[in-house]
Amino acid sequence: MPGKFITFEGPEGSGKSTQIRLLQETLEARGLNVFCTREPGGTATGEQIRNLLQHDAAGEPLSDRAELLLFTASRAQLMDRVILPALENGDWVLCDRFIDSTMAYQGFARGMDIPTLDAINDFAIGGHKPDLTVLLDLEIEAGFQRLESRYAGTNESHDRFEREAREFHHRVREGYHRLAEREPQRFSIIDADRSIEAIASEVWNAVQGALL
Amino acid sequence: MPGKFITFEGPEGSGKSTQIRLLQETLEARGLNVFCTREPGGTATGEQIRNLLQHDAAGEPLSDRAELLLFTASRAQLMDRVILPALENGDWVLCDRFIDSTMAYQGFARGMDIPTLDAINDFAIGGHKPDLTVLLDLEIEAGFQRLESRYAGTNESHDRFEREAREFHHRVREGYHRLAEREPQRFSIIDADRSIEAIASEVWNAVQGALL
Repeated sequence: MPGKFITFEGPEGSGKSTQIRLLQETLEARGLNVFCTREPGGTATGEQIRNLLQHDAAGEPLSDRAELLLFTASRAQLMDRVILPALENGDWVLCDRFIDSTMAYQGFARGMDIPTLDAINDFAIGGHKPDLTVLLDLEIEAGFQRLESRYAGTNESHDRFEREAREFHHRVREGYHRLAEREPQRFSIIDADRSIEAIASEVWNAVQGALL
Repeated sequence: MPGKFITFEGPEGSGKSTQIRLLQETLEARGLNVFCTREPGGTATGEQIRNLLQHDAAGEPLSDRAELLLFTASRAQLMDRVILPALENGDWVLCDRFIDSTMAYQGFARGMDIPTLDAINDFAIGGHKPDLTVLLDLEIEAGFQRLESRYAGTNESHDRFEREAREFHHRVREGYHRLAEREPQRFSIIDADRSIEAIASEVWNAVQGALL
């Protein structure tokens, strides 16, 4: 492919959208065409699927399996109609979340069967994996310290919620690390508990090292 | 499961909906609760997916992979929200097309990878295969003789269309036979080039032999 395909993964609040914007500026300053997108959505079909995912149709809750297949249907349409044509055109594509979010959240954290999710993901993307996946890694406690500071001054107890959320997010983080171990050449793990500029500098080093 | 799950497969015009209606009447006459459904659709979410499949959203054509994943998302929702609860309730469920249509049409006829489609189907239905699949089998030529009689008296040439369609439908039929060979205990192949009554009698024999 003449273009390059970079995905950004990591927990909510790890700074993915900020780093995508900064990388886009850096690449465009070098004269490259950059296209940014995110999941689910990014196509007319994907936006309708996003709507189905966000608002249960007619008050009917989606089953976990239906939800996963809708996510991957949106991914297949985005891949076939947007990402692959852009890469063939020589553009750089930056995507906020992709196949590894399915693996980390539905697979490792929720316990769906990993080989089956691998097979469904591979089908959805036609085997075209990202050239580089930037994992913005954050200690769970660092994220929760921010959360706790929000609660300061209230007298609510969030212990139970936080404990459940901590366990879930620990499994997500552990999942991301397992994915990076499986494909060390595709992944670049970057410590996201630093300044925006320090992170952006390391993202740029990873892109230069892997793709330029 | 207290209930029984029967799917009907076969080409368009093989009489699936007629035979489902007749079997429903026979089962209900014996005091059984029968629920009939069809794919895609059968749930509020599935109807919205059906709409996405029938009318390309915003004029954007669906890719083959996105289409297949939307079909199976509708199947997962139907299975989890309708079929499994009905079977747990002791109902008999009759479904017009199911997993084998995906295998015959997208797999064997269009050439998508069979093991991958098997994995996606198994995921969508959570491993709960039908108790019995009635394959209404029809010689391709028998179907096309009806088609040709429609064209009699016109001076259009349908040769190219018919030749392509014949090859496609031969692959679908061959695919159905391969599926029946893989799982002979689940499938009952019934010659559909006979009277409605003769077919209904053989369907009833198959149901009695397999499930009663």
